[in-house]
Amino acid sequence: MIELYHCADARSFRALWALEELGLPYRLHVLPFPPRIRQPEYLEANPLGTIPLLIDGDTRMTESAAIVQYLAVKHGPTDLAVAPDEPGYGEWLNWLHFGEATLTFPQTLVLRYRMLEPPERRLPQAADDYAQWFHSRLRHVERVLTDREWLVADRFTMADISVGYALLLAKSLKIDNGFPPQVAAYWERIKAREAFGRAKAAQKA
Amino acid sequence: MIELYHCADARSFRALWALEELGLPYRLHVLPFPPRIRQPEYLEANPLGTIPLLIDGDTRMTESAAIVQYLAVKHGPTDLAVAPDEPGYGEWLNWLHFGEATLTFPQTLVLRYRMLEPPERRLPQAADDYAQWFHSRLRHVERVLTDREWLVADRFTMADISVGYALLLAKSLKIDNGFPPQVAAYWERIKAREAFGRAKAAQKA
Repeated sequence: MIELYHCADARSFRALWALEELGLPYRLHVLPFPPRIRQPEYLEANPLGTIPLLIDGDTRMTESAAIVQYLAVKHGPTDLAVAPDEPGYGEWLNWLHFGEATLTFPQTLVLRYRMLEPPERRLPQAADDYAQWFHSRLRHVERVLTDREWLVADRFTMADISVGYALLLAKSLKIDNGFPPQVAAYWERIKAREAFGRAKAAQKA
Repeated sequence: MIELYHCADARSFRALWALEELGLPYRLHVLPFPPRIRQPEYLEANPLGTIPLLIDGDTRMTESAAIVQYLAVKHGPTDLAVAPDEPGYGEWLNWLHFGEATLTFPQTLVLRYRMLEPPERRLPQAADDYAQWFHSRLRHVERVLTDREWLVADRFTMADISVGYALLLAKSLKIDNGFPPQVAAYWERIKAREAFGRAKAAQKA
């Protein structure tokens, strides 16, 4: 059975949500955040100390946006993947990366320098710089959503999990500033996904 | 013909190098860095203002680690891709993301707060924090390379382009600190790739 190491609402939520969308059986290990400090024996499972860790047979993965692609391709066929012979394939791969590298990493700067660091190590300028970065990149999402319900291929896919998680994080960090209108409507569609709700419930169980 | 918008040694180098590995024809547009300031008409081609932009027919992509996967899958078959039915598929996807989200983004903080920002906005603490982050994640690469020449599937793949670019950036930012021994040897193998040399030459032409 697939095993997932997870912290509530951390990047590993992408993997949890994807497992629920696919209806796959899995075993969930919920850890306190940050695990490398609050549950140091986790380093034996994942020397990086990062979340997520997904184990599927001999496959071990730690990058959440890679995991959702992996799950859809290996445990499909499913409309959650865009196939290489579909017109949206390149765009799909782009969104999978964009959700993490462009929309999520900047937010971790805000989390770190506005909240996690002890007061004497906080850096309001860095937190503000990267909150602004996030918002400038979000304008691109706003433009794209003007004429579509989901990001690519006229259907909900793993790309929406990659980007949807970035929106969840922005909400939880309270740096959403009130999303722009298309993004706000998209966020409502995201939250209405049954699998999103099941993933939210699973991490509390 | 494939078009690539590129700045010397920027993330778009991944795409350029991948095109050379594949032997594909392409048209290269070399821009000054940062293009959004030094060549503002670029914003008409890519409203994000970021590098790279790859255009292949109707496909437009901006995420360098997604582009190398796309090129290998769409313009293959090639051993530079790891197929879903190979044992290393999940690991391959993981390295593609790890090279960018985990090894490259932290370095951009060093670049920004140690070099690009005007002196009054520099943040030595943030630059040092993320240089340290880079080195701690690089230890994982060092461990993995102990028993292999390339990252996955017993051959050079696009995963090595994703991670290899992060090493190139560390060298150019001079934050390599002398790579640990396995990484240093890997970097020599990377540099010896003929296609790496051709990409380096192409961006100077």
